[in-house]
Amino acid sequence: MSPTSTPSRPKVAVVYGSASDAATMSKAGATLGRFGVEFEEAVLSAHRAPRTLADWVDGLRDRGVAVVIAGAGLAAALPGTVAALTTLPVIGVPISGGALDGMDSLLAIAQMPPGVAVATVGLNNATNAAVLAVQILAVSDPDLAAKLATYKDDFEKAAADGLARAGASA
Amino acid sequence: MSPTSTPSRPKVAVVYGSASDAATMSKAGATLGRFGVEFEEAVLSAHRAPRTLADWVDGLRDRGVAVVIAGAGLAAALPGTVAALTTLPVIGVPISGGALDGMDSLLAIAQMPPGVAVATVGLNNATNAAVLAVQILAVSDPDLAAKLATYKDDFEKAAADGLARAGASA
Amino acid sequence: MSPTSTPSRPKVAVVYGSASDAATMSKAGATLGRFGVEFEEAVLSAHRAPRTLADWVDGLRDRGVAVVIAGAGLAAALPGTVAALTTLPVIGVPISGGALDGMDSLLAIAQMPPGVAVATVGLNNATNAAVLAVQILAVSDPDLAAKLATYKDDFEKAAADGLARAGASA
Amino acid sequence: MSPTSTPSRPKVAVVYGSASDAATMSKAGATLGRFGVEFEEAVLSAHRAPRTLADWVDGLRDRGVAVVIAGAGLAAALPGTVAALTTLPVIGVPISGGALDGMDSLLAIAQMPPGVAVATVGLNNATNAAVLAVQILAVSDPDLAAKLATYKDDFEKAAADGLARAGASA
Amino acid sequence: MSPTSTPSRPKVAVVYGSASDAATMSKAGATLGRFGVEFEEAVLSAHRAPRTLADWVDGLRDRGVAVVIAGAGLAAALPGTVAALTTLPVIGVPISGGALDGMDSLLAIAQMPPGVAVATVGLNNATNAAVLAVQILAVSDPDLAAKLATYKDDFEKAAADGLARAGASA
Amino acid sequence: MSPTSTPSRPKVAVVYGSASDAATMSKAGATLGRFGVEFEEAVLSAHRAPRTLADWVDGLRDRGVAVVIAGAGLAAALPGTVAALTTLPVIGVPISGGALDGMDSLLAIAQMPPGVAVATVGLNNATNAAVLAVQILAVSDPDLAAKLATYKDDFEKAAADGLARAGASA
Amino acid sequence: MSPTSTPSRPKVAVVYGSASDAATMSKAGATLGRFGVEFEEAVLSAHRAPRTLADWVDGLRDRGVAVVIAGAGLAAALPGTVAALTTLPVIGVPISGGALDGMDSLLAIAQMPPGVAVATVGLNNATNAAVLAVQILAVSDPDLAAKLATYKDDFEKAAADGLARAGASA
Amino acid sequence: MSPTSTPSRPKVAVVYGSASDAATMSKAGATLGRFGVEFEEAVLSAHRAPRTLADWVDGLRDRGVAVVIAGAGLAAALPGTVAALTTLPVIGVPISGGALDGMDSLLAIAQMPPGVAVATVGLNNATNAAVLAVQILAVSDPDLAAKLATYKDDFEKAAADGLARAGASA
Repeated sequence: MSPTSTPSRPKVAVVYGSASDAATMSKAGATLGRFGVEFEEAVLSAHRAPRTLADWVDGLRDRGVAVVIAGAGLAAALPGTVAALTTLPVIGVPISGGALDGMDSLLAIAQMPPGVAVATVGLNNATNAAVLAVQILAVSDPDLAAKLATYKDDFEKAAADGLARAGASA
Repeated sequence: MSPTSTPSRPKVAVVYGSASDAATMSKAGATLGRFGVEFEEAVLSAHRAPRTLADWVDGLRDRGVAVVIAGAGLAAALPGTVAALTTLPVIGVPISGGALDGMDSLLAIAQMPPGVAVATVGLNNATNAAVLAVQILAVSDPDLAAKLATYKDDFEKAAADGLARAGASA
Repeated sequence: MSPTSTPSRPKVAVVYGSASDAATMSKAGATLGRFGVEFEEAVLSAHRAPRTLADWVDGLRDRGVAVVIAGAGLAAALPGTVAALTTLPVIGVPISGGALDGMDSLLAIAQMPPGVAVATVGLNNATNAAVLAVQILAVSDPDLAAKLATYKDDFEKAAADGLARAGASA
Repeated sequence: MSPTSTPSRPKVAVVYGSASDAATMSKAGATLGRFGVEFEEAVLSAHRAPRTLADWVDGLRDRGVAVVIAGAGLAAALPGTVAALTTLPVIGVPISGGALDGMDSLLAIAQMPPGVAVATVGLNNATNAAVLAVQILAVSDPDLAAKLATYKDDFEKAAADGLARAGASA
Repeated sequence: MSPTSTPSRPKVAVVYGSASDAATMSKAGATLGRFGVEFEEAVLSAHRAPRTLADWVDGLRDRGVAVVIAGAGLAAALPGTVAALTTLPVIGVPISGGALDGMDSLLAIAQMPPGVAVATVGLNNATNAAVLAVQILAVSDPDLAAKLATYKDDFEKAAADGLARAGASA
Repeated sequence: MSPTSTPSRPKVAVVYGSASDAATMSKAGATLGRFGVEFEEAVLSAHRAPRTLADWVDGLRDRGVAVVIAGAGLAAALPGTVAALTTLPVIGVPISGGALDGMDSLLAIAQMPPGVAVATVGLNNATNAAVLAVQILAVSDPDLAAKLATYKDDFEKAAADGLARAGASA
Repeated sequence: MSPTSTPSRPKVAVVYGSASDAATMSKAGATLGRFGVEFEEAVLSAHRAPRTLADWVDGLRDRGVAVVIAGAGLAAALPGTVAALTTLPVIGVPISGGALDGMDSLLAIAQMPPGVAVATVGLNNATNAAVLAVQILAVSDPDLAAKLATYKDDFEKAAADGLARAGASA
Repeated sequence: MSPTSTPSRPKVAVVYGSASDAATMSKAGATLGRFGVEFEEAVLSAHRAPRTLADWVDGLRDRGVAVVIAGAGLAAALPGTVAALTTLPVIGVPISGGALDGMDSLLAIAQMPPGVAVATVGLNNATNAAVLAVQILAVSDPDLAAKLATYKDDFEKAAADGLARAGASA
């Protein structure tokens, strides 16, 4: 955790509470990679390893992390616990693994008390957590902002192309 | 936090996340007092004061605390955070202060991951948190066990008396 | 109720409402066994066999039981019915077998009236019911308390090792 | 259990878990009275006074009771507990007193396991519990059946009159 | 539908809204058969065939029906519609076929307005609908009442036997 | 109900289940009036007055009604019952009067079986029921279509004016 | 998009937010086809392609569309966005694809603000969206009205035939 | 909307769907002001004024806006609609004004489709929306980052002071 490894450009940390969340959370990494944003990844439960987690959070700025993405299921304390321990923006991904289809994790992540915020995305939507992280970095990074504009334009083009094809075949 | 202050008899700690929870949580103290169980009380938010909370938890055993009662609303991380940091039994009281009538706090407290448990009671039911704390202490305290037996008998007597009066007036 | 059959060390009773709950509830026994805590197990429905259940509860103390773990689904009256009939601490495990994914059993177990408490754990989380039972027994059993401390430390070590391995492979 | 105290006509027992339910449950008595059906009333909590409740249930047939109406809030075990202890038809009235607006009591009363049934009516709808009790008694009582037919006809007449008046004033 | 086929003993009508409900509702017939209670069965949607349903309801008393069991899913209007058209007791079975796991049908059946009652049982619990129908008929039929007492005793015996076997093998 | 009173232009019928719904449903009339659309109004419960309701529905076309707006609370069968009895488009307004805040009425109105549709609007949103009725009539009425375009433009203008005023005062 | 392609008879547009909704939404086309109503179909996300969607909506009237059916899952903004941009009646089909079983899409479609209405049908019930569209067109199309009457009669006949067969086999 | 008014430092835009949301959303401005962050405020409904809203969004970058806070109730399309039209980070505040206590707005804001993200905060929690906006701006603004550190430290100090006072008075 020496500061010598600090990259020249801010990066994202992706953390989740259980190895069983890895598949869902891999969508975050895939989207970050698409935008050329570096990230580190860790498996850390707020409830089972609170002290290891606190140490990991303490080192975030030294490792050049500017935004944290935290995914968790059930009581889903991870995003809020990280947000309590850092001033970096924290994006929370509720995961729907238990009997209640994720309603528990959605509420546990979104309903933070005034003063400590988590940017909550939809259930299992690690893709959007990454999009949001890119948008946050793009506030001070014109290259990323341009990539985001292209990303959005591509959606419009794909939709317009779909309409054209459907019209042609009609 | 020197061990010299350890009382001869185990006591209960009552903690809650916000001063606005005090009225609801005062029912815990009232019931503990009825059973002659000592307790300490603290206002500590898991999200707003995580480091102060961790220090407070670290001193629990030195202060002679054997059971923790933790009440919180909204994302309600307090009971789980305390349970993550101690091996003492932790009783969680979900509080219904926000827009969702407490469904958020109930799920955030009950749906802990395997390995770190919180003994959840009903919404705003600080009375039952105290009853549970007394039952836990009574496992190794015959006096408390006898008081609990009387407490239960009194409910039956009151009900039987009510029936008798209703019959008499019929 | 003669004390002659009392074992030297308090034990746990695990009871559930239907044979179909056995697989879920077996996690309680597995965790109790890991801590060397003895337990007895019974299948008893509060609604289908109320009188047999009442007799079983009456014998708990004679059989050396100090804590009860009760699991049930649907209207899930079992934990509350046991709690109504004994002063021992009762831990309730809501089970998600029916159409409503266990929301019915969670509420039926947690929302007890003031005066009669059930220590509710998460849906299907019989592991945590056992952890809680061990924590309760550990209040007066330093050996169990030491085992719990090790149990918690192992979680931290596993998390820290995972981080180290991830860092090494990076 | 001698039959000597049996009244000439079957009656209804109205029971509820707390004195705070009395206002809601009084609608049952009002409707039973309108149909000339006798009833007795008791306040008995399944969780706080299980033994007094069991005695009360044991005496129901001797007191000439043919149908039980049981109202409760929160975990709402009363209707199911009564149904577990008698073969008489039991009608359950979920009451919406707690933080969850009665969803807890509705599920706790309706979601009984196969073999032990409760006839659940809507939240706080003690009127319909009484209507149902009258319908049950009317199966073998032509007088009550005739009164029910009139009760229904009156609804139709009131509606038709309302339409006529609205038309006249148009 | 001539009145000549009226049986000497009251019977039960089982109706449901869709052929896809047949498997769930067959549990009602199985339980009625176990008690020797005759029943007729019909598939009739309140929404798709309201006039055919009204005719069917009009003939219920002529066909000797004393109790109706009505099962439906989704908006589940069938039980309430039948209850609106007859003074016979109507038992509603909510069926969990759609996306919302039956919460829609449970509320649509239970939440009737004052004056028109449906005796709601748990989701898919056609067995309990039949038990309730038998309990209703047993109010004026001592043979059925005796069978119900045996039915309940058998549950207790099975539970006690299970305990004994478990104790023997311990 | 003679056909001589048929107006030259189609009108809307507004019906609701209880006089207590009148205030909520009056918003429908206010909006219809704003668009110059004639309407009739009736209070008719599907559960309490099913035969009077059926007669009323039978006369709708003769009275020149082209669209029905039906509001109801609780089990809220009214919109679906009307839709079952007519081929006219039926718009349902769920009303939030009971303990469950209208979730019951929303589901009871929206979750119709395939083949019999109700156009459901938001809770208590009788205004939108009227807007929808006007939109339906406007399909074949260019005057109404023009009024709807103005109605929408007015919203945009008000919003733009608000922005302009805020900018001017900044 | 030239107005020369305007058909002589109004048609329906079916639009949905994602290709994964195609199977569910195909039921709309099947039902429209059964009634001989022409329709066009498009895949357009309100969130991913808002400008392409706005252009598509702008051309609806020119293409002879009189009613729009819009299906979407999750936050389900599509129906409301279309309704915001046109004065044509818009029918919304909530689709249950995500973790919450469609409760999110149902509320997002139904709970529109006063002034902009969506005619919401049940979850995944694209059939009913088509029935509603036909009912809307039938207000000014006697042929369609006659077909709808036959459609309804066929339901009654099928139900009556089912009863007759069941009676014959009894 | 000329670019000449662009401030030297990025600012925040606060927008909400209805004037009735102003009190709730004013907490965002209060918190932004505390951190010395400039902001503009607008009332714009996504459903009632979609074209005015689109124009407003088009001008955001020219006006120097770097982050948008959007609050809405009911179907709550505003945050998602803004996110669909810009690449700036959008923070959504669900508002609990209607019958469903805000569950509708929470889901409508959080459950966005992959590719278009909204950073959702808790119900009515405009304070946290502002905290999140400050955290986003602080990624590239060391002054703001320092203020955030102080903001967090103040929470810890207040909690520690509270503990000390409680201890002193004990």
